[in-house]
Amino acid sequence: MGNTFGHLFRITTFGESHGGGVGVVIDGCPPQLEISAAEIQVELDRRRPGQSKITTPRKESDTCEIISGVFQGKTLGTAIAILVRNKDARSQDYDEMAFKYRPSHADATYDAKYGIRNWQGGGRSSARETIGRVAAGAIAKKILKQVAGIEIVAYVKRIKNKEAVVDNKIVTLEQVESNIVRCPNDECAVKMIDEIDRARRDKDSLGGVVECVARNVPPGLGEPVFDKLEADLAKSVMSLPATKGFEIGSGFAGTTMTGSEHNDEFYIDENSQTRVVRTVTNRSGGIQGGISNGENIVMRAAFKPTATIGKQQRTVTKTGEETTLAAKGRHDPCVLPRAVPMVEAMVALVLCDHLLRHHAQCKLM
Amino acid sequence: MGNTFGHLFRITTFGESHGGGVGVVIDGCPPQLEISAAEIQVELDRRRPGQSKITTPRKESDTCEIISGVFQGKTLGTAIAILVRNKDARSQDYDEMAFKYRPSHADATYDAKYGIRNWQGGGRSSARETIGRVAAGAIAKKILKQVAGIEIVAYVKRIKNKEAVVDNKIVTLEQVESNIVRCPNDECAVKMIDEIDRARRDKDSLGGVVECVARNVPPGLGEPVFDKLEADLAKSVMSLPATKGFEIGSGFAGTTMTGSEHNDEFYIDENSQTRVVRTVTNRSGGIQGGISNGENIVMRAAFKPTATIGKQQRTVTKTGEETTLAAKGRHDPCVLPRAVPMVEAMVALVLCDHLLRHHAQCKLM
Amino acid sequence: MGNTFGHLFRITTFGESHGGGVGVVIDGCPPQLEISAAEIQVELDRRRPGQSKITTPRKESDTCEIISGVFQGKTLGTAIAILVRNKDARSQDYDEMAFKYRPSHADATYDAKYGIRNWQGGGRSSARETIGRVAAGAIAKKILKQVAGIEIVAYVKRIKNKEAVVDNKIVTLEQVESNIVRCPNDECAVKMIDEIDRARRDKDSLGGVVECVARNVPPGLGEPVFDKLEADLAKSVMSLPATKGFEIGSGFAGTTMTGSEHNDEFYIDENSQTRVVRTVTNRSGGIQGGISNGENIVMRAAFKPTATIGKQQRTVTKTGEETTLAAKGRHDPCVLPRAVPMVEAMVALVLCDHLLRHHAQCKLM
Amino acid sequence: MGNTFGHLFRITTFGESHGGGVGVVIDGCPPQLEISAAEIQVELDRRRPGQSKITTPRKESDTCEIISGVFQGKTLGTAIAILVRNKDARSQDYDEMAFKYRPSHADATYDAKYGIRNWQGGGRSSARETIGRVAAGAIAKKILKQVAGIEIVAYVKRIKNKEAVVDNKIVTLEQVESNIVRCPNDECAVKMIDEIDRARRDKDSLGGVVECVARNVPPGLGEPVFDKLEADLAKSVMSLPATKGFEIGSGFAGTTMTGSEHNDEFYIDENSQTRVVRTVTNRSGGIQGGISNGENIVMRAAFKPTATIGKQQRTVTKTGEETTLAAKGRHDPCVLPRAVPMVEAMVALVLCDHLLRHHAQCKLM
Repeated sequence: MGNTFGHLFRITTFGESHGGGVGVVIDGCPPQLEISAAEIQVELDRRRPGQSKITTPRKESDTCEIISGVFQGKTLGTAIAILVRNKDARSQDYDEMAFKYRPSHADATYDAKYGIRNWQGGGRSSARETIGRVAAGAIAKKILKQVAGIEIVAYVKRIKNKEAVVDNKIVTLEQVESNIVRCPNDECAVKMIDEIDRARRDKDSLGGVVECVARNVPPGLGEPVFDKLEADLAKSVMSLPATKGFEIGSGFAGTTMTGSEHNDEFYIDENSQTRVVRTVTNRSGGIQGGISNGENIVMRAAFKPTATIGKQQRTVTKTGEETTLAAKGRHDPCVLPRAVPMVEAMVALVLCDHLLRHHAQCKLM
Repeated sequence: MGNTFGHLFRITTFGESHGGGVGVVIDGCPPQLEISAAEIQVELDRRRPGQSKITTPRKESDTCEIISGVFQGKTLGTAIAILVRNKDARSQDYDEMAFKYRPSHADATYDAKYGIRNWQGGGRSSARETIGRVAAGAIAKKILKQVAGIEIVAYVKRIKNKEAVVDNKIVTLEQVESNIVRCPNDECAVKMIDEIDRARRDKDSLGGVVECVARNVPPGLGEPVFDKLEADLAKSVMSLPATKGFEIGSGFAGTTMTGSEHNDEFYIDENSQTRVVRTVTNRSGGIQGGISNGENIVMRAAFKPTATIGKQQRTVTKTGEETTLAAKGRHDPCVLPRAVPMVEAMVALVLCDHLLRHHAQCKLM
Repeated sequence: MGNTFGHLFRITTFGESHGGGVGVVIDGCPPQLEISAAEIQVELDRRRPGQSKITTPRKESDTCEIISGVFQGKTLGTAIAILVRNKDARSQDYDEMAFKYRPSHADATYDAKYGIRNWQGGGRSSARETIGRVAAGAIAKKILKQVAGIEIVAYVKRIKNKEAVVDNKIVTLEQVESNIVRCPNDECAVKMIDEIDRARRDKDSLGGVVECVARNVPPGLGEPVFDKLEADLAKSVMSLPATKGFEIGSGFAGTTMTGSEHNDEFYIDENSQTRVVRTVTNRSGGIQGGISNGENIVMRAAFKPTATIGKQQRTVTKTGEETTLAAKGRHDPCVLPRAVPMVEAMVALVLCDHLLRHHAQCKLM
Repeated sequence: MGNTFGHLFRITTFGESHGGGVGVVIDGCPPQLEISAAEIQVELDRRRPGQSKITTPRKESDTCEIISGVFQGKTLGTAIAILVRNKDARSQDYDEMAFKYRPSHADATYDAKYGIRNWQGGGRSSARETIGRVAAGAIAKKILKQVAGIEIVAYVKRIKNKEAVVDNKIVTLEQVESNIVRCPNDECAVKMIDEIDRARRDKDSLGGVVECVARNVPPGLGEPVFDKLEADLAKSVMSLPATKGFEIGSGFAGTTMTGSEHNDEFYIDENSQTRVVRTVTNRSGGIQGGISNGENIVMRAAFKPTATIGKQQRTVTKTGEETTLAAKGRHDPCVLPRAVPMVEAMVALVLCDHLLRHHAQCKLM
């Protein structure tokens, strides 16, 4: 269970790090959307390993094939299946991990749950699983753009203690993609890259914060009570590997303010073509009562330092003996640069699903 | 949509702040569980208004009636419906809110989404909606206790800047309930109560952090990929009114550590009756790879300061005129003391659902 | 589990025959629909016991209360809860059934599944459970009528061997309601009533066939692959108590034809305002490939003779002793007259759900 | 939407008749089940085209590849993806169908719904879509066998008017597979084959009835109210292409009996190792009140004559012109022989899902 996400725009992913491949089935996609493997590949290329010196050197082109659901360049409205074959699978790197559990990784818990585990490269718990999400997210993004002009931009906000000042109102994809750490503040990016490179050399790893903004989201998306927009966003982001926290708008910092300081006062935007209700500030992060209010949706996700490191650590074996492990294999010293397209994909999937849900219930009559 | 939560242990809530009442239908509850309205009432009493000088003075006994699903004191295995009638509904307090939107509240977004809104007391967006969750959570807690000895304790960790030191390994419900702010650190509790009381007198409000621990959770709960235990917990807590953030284990703070500092090393606990794999530290918060590892599950939720305040604020009317609003009505100056049983309920619902899911898939053959 | 039905227009029912009451929570209803308890009551009155000499004499007004989700006469878009209290509960009639299983009833299987059972009046397996369905169906019907002019008419087609000729193209609700057996063929209705009355006097029971037509269903409703319209209709009808079979269009009889005899040839209807694709015949029953084609949707459901009868039968006790049972209590000698509004309700729920689903996916872009 | 089936043992299928391939993702499969591509292939071979003179001559080996979810011959508990590539795709046979609608086929309705359609070989509406179901069904069957000794046998009961006498208590897979029409009554099978062969030569087609029995189903499977076992079985079977009707137990014929004739009286089976409640007759078809009672589950499905025939028929074009069509391409003159493994697969999927659901709720405490 748990391999399906979304209510109307719904994806099901499959695949392990080493094996036949990974992929996704997308159900509920509107028909007649123009889509090509090349467009999806653009997003997969942002996610793939071996992009730069601060990502894992595993060589994977991650070339996607659209198996079904697209005909003569357009979606059919039926299930879209996308497959990416695994290529550079050096399972011998993982021999030791067949019986030694990596600290803070999923090895031990998968064994505890299932009594069996594909120990090659993390199996199903590998971040390679996110390929299907990113592929589906590429389609979701295109729908959001076409239907409502929505754009989603994520970026690295902080690596360890290096935090970048970024204006989420105007940050662009191009700025994010202008450096290998995906921080749209070049000065800070240099420092972040240095930090990550040092951790890599130290056989250690780093964490940080990814921030994401969704602009032009129309008011009305999100479903009270349980499927509040922030709740579904939280789930979507917290389902990504290595996440430890989620914030919307003012987040934890907002809890130190009083209500009169924190509340977003309303005003009428006379500059808009139609007189529109806006808020002076945006501590709500674009969502009030679980429903989008038309302001930018702003959220942050905490990613822990990569669990798999080359440094020797104390651990146990599958059969219950204490031992040590210094992980071999090719791992990211910091997941954040590659997590950026993953966060965007998850946010796109949630917004697209809620766009359809809102359309179904509130635009019918 | 969005009024249902859970996959196997599944609840559907209904009701508005003012109207016929609020309640819940619980589907998937195991049969033959002994349960009484009185047991459920204990949890509802922790949530109800008018408990103390730092909560809203609205007078509601919140007496629950079990409509169906229980026979001769035991669950039937079929749908359990629980109803709480609304009593002290002074809708005249809300007349002004029929046309003026409260800043940072759901008034404007409900109107944007539905084009209609029950403006009496917040309607469906009122925290009164959580009565159904707390009632269902009482049953979930009992199942968790009986099946696996799981206990869930939440408490106020911080109000504004007043943060309490609490040992989540040993904190008890009795300690939490020993004061009106539900902070199991009496010294800090006094300061918190003072802060809230001052905010109340100032017609302002405060926010803070609730921490929650689940102990004795067996390894194996949680479903990769999308229904990771932390993802479902995040969604459950972020679906509560006024939440702005969620953390599991080390949370945002953990992102400033290196992997070698952050990882939870494994050891074998020889003191246990059976030799058990444990971790030296618990920065993972009891979950690795989306699956419980047997350590305590520790999480925190950020609650913003209450949006409805007596202080005058700038806002707009339903018809698009700028105006001001100083809210009347009876509101909590700080939601956290009453949010404690809500958080416990949501955590219990998630764990109970995953206990059933795990049992179904992994304990069948 | 199993108390929820529908994907977007979704209902959850609760309640047992004897106990606090029965009801339904409706999620996903479009906002701003005018609806009143009186309108819902009209359908409940068609379903309630004690209508005529050929239904059970149990006296229940089945008066419904709208607990939530409707404000000032209009739907809010949030969960609608409807409650009907149980009144005439003579549980003493069921004392014998507390330990003796009624043949072909759910008594034994509920005990086998749950190890517990509310034996008063059938508990959750009572047809009284359908009150929630019929109430929700009343709302679904109104949406279908307003959005697309869809009308749904069911009627008794056959009682035992008495089969009525009915033209489903033109049959009206008024004709159906013109007699107590709900057969819109007065001549045949008289014979059916006689048959049922004789069975009643014999302490026996009868079964038969309900036919249902949905007119003005727009083309395009239904989702390949698993949620084909006929599949969801089959499930909906087969979830009603006492059903043993379901047919769409030509049904079982159509299997004796050849393809060239059975196929519905297409033609262009020049008489329509817009030139419309129609079929000469309608053996498909308005659905091809799981999707509505614009022709009338015609289906039939087989209802077995009521299981609970006054005649003495061989059975066993809960503790495994062979015995006999001549059921007391007040039971319908034939469920079909009261099943008519149930079938209509289920068909309405399926069509309304698919109308929303189709609108979401195919009317967005 | 609609490409996913099941609640806990859940499958999602994808693929069109002509294109990259067809397949399935299976979620919720218990871990550590031994399974091989070869075992799955056995069932696919029963379904594949070109088996005999009475099936379509399309040449497809339908060789399956397990992409994920199985490691070292055992299920991992995570998503199992199975892919079958399309091979013998002569799309030129379908050129005419690009613009002419086949009567009683899905061509026109897919266009009406989506405004686009893969017209090669029926696209998503092709029976080729059922490959994923049959592959998943092979795994479900194995689980049912191992956990509860359940065996499922389907067979052709009737072709047009040729109906076979078959004893469902003892019929075996070997008997079913002993002839090309899959009727376990050799004498009748010969007549059926003659009928089909004649229809094939006449460029016409035939329909009929498939019967299916599930033996050794434990009491307690099925969920009141909406997910009654017969309701889910009805949906599963009615989601197969070309089905027009479904019956459980006595079906439509049972409606001509009185209650005292129809009811299945209970007795205690003293011959069983434990004294077991049994029924003298089995008109209930193994299900009472939506829950299995331990007797054989017996059901029948009506399959219409194949819609695609070589005989000339009246139809219309995509652009609304009346025309005629004599279908080219390679089609089954009768779908029933190949429908037998499809019906078994759907029944297995439903029973497996309900086995897990029952285990989750009723075997936890």
